[in-house]
Amino acid sequence: MSTTSALIVAAGRGTRMGPGVDKLFLEVAGAPVIAHAWRRMETCAAIDELVLVVRPGWESSFQRIAVEQGFRKPFRLTVGGAERQDSVANGLRALSPDCEWVAIHDGARPCTAASAIERCLEAARRVGAAVAAQRATDTIKESDGQKQIARHLDRTRLWSVQTPQCFRVEVIRRALEAVVKAGRQVTDDTAACELIGQAVELVECPEPNPKVTTPADLPWVELLLTRLP
Amino acid sequence: MSTTSALIVAAGRGTRMGPGVDKLFLEVAGAPVIAHAWRRMETCAAIDELVLVVRPGWESSFQRIAVEQGFRKPFRLTVGGAERQDSVANGLRALSPDCEWVAIHDGARPCTAASAIERCLEAARRVGAAVAAQRATDTIKESDGQKQIARHLDRTRLWSVQTPQCFRVEVIRRALEAVVKAGRQVTDDTAACELIGQAVELVECPEPNPKVTTPADLPWVELLLTRLP
Repeated sequence: MSTTSALIVAAGRGTRMGPGVDKLFLEVAGAPVIAHAWRRMETCAAIDELVLVVRPGWESSFQRIAVEQGFRKPFRLTVGGAERQDSVANGLRALSPDCEWVAIHDGARPCTAASAIERCLEAARRVGAAVAAQRATDTIKESDGQKQIARHLDRTRLWSVQTPQCFRVEVIRRALEAVVKAGRQVTDDTAACELIGQAVELVECPEPNPKVTTPADLPWVELLLTRLP
Repeated sequence: MSTTSALIVAAGRGTRMGPGVDKLFLEVAGAPVIAHAWRRMETCAAIDELVLVVRPGWESSFQRIAVEQGFRKPFRLTVGGAERQDSVANGLRALSPDCEWVAIHDGARPCTAASAIERCLEAARRVGAAVAAQRATDTIKESDGQKQIARHLDRTRLWSVQTPQCFRVEVIRRALEAVVKAGRQVTDDTAACELIGQAVELVECPEPNPKVTTPADLPWVELLLTRLP
């Protein structure tokens, strides 16, 4: 049987929280944000192992979390690169040799439902690439780059995509290589698929799946975490 | 001095809540959703009077709310039309003759900060039209109309727009007339401005300003309301 891995990106600096604050280590519902994100993958039956991409020098903090939280699934730590895509590429290199499927997840998303992870993986097994998504509920406008509306978008076609983003490992490796060859930068992994003509399925996941980006997000995250199974 | 009015759109059926459920009358933090939205305008010093656009036959429910909540600002009720744009047009007809500025607000947004209302009005006084907006934090994709990603949008230019949407009254009247003449439909009032070449300013309002669309939104709204001044 092939291996399915979670690749947690936990190497960002999260500058929106202010200097010196690492949002991943903020305490919420009794544990750091990253510990909750890790637990989502730890308790999801579809995940066999984890790779965490971390900032250089922070390895011991992650080892400590694993001990404190009593995590039992095999995990490996690897260090991140300059950009998110470099961090993901490093993480892909650290997967088990027999890993065929990967769920790439933001370390700052602590509330993701197990069903979202499972359903994204199922879609990736069918299509090659899939992403947890929600229909846009707010109206979205494109600005002129300043503070003026330049274009009104058709909401019925807009989706907010989150993580996990799930792939056949061979697909995301090839896609990220194409990004490097093209000298491009992508801020999410599905965008890399465009360069190799790989279809990406939007998997509608209605459960709230917020990303911690500012301190204002914490009360809502706390509320969600206390309600999770 | 010219009059500034709030126009609260409270005529929708909110079908996403399920049949027979009017989301505006769901209780949250001790009062119906619509009572909270109304209170935001009642307590905002920049607003002189209110017009509420309601479903035919529901006038007495709104009168009761005003009494129960002890609202003192002048208000008028008028009935909604077939589409949101018709409801807004009806609301505009019900404004005081000397009303020069209007803040159009969703009755399903109960948490809007007074500063958001005031700052949108200020921008409208400068530009003619302005809308409360937040930078998109999630990555947004355009689908092919089904469940596949068709286009990756540049997040740095994307804004999620909410309400209030504020206008010089003459501007939004003219814009909605242009929509009718063109036989078009618009789902938000800033989109109407495009037809008359009216610029719309995006006013960054970082405070959470959710719209109640499903029962899952209520716990978060409750939390926010208990923290509002």
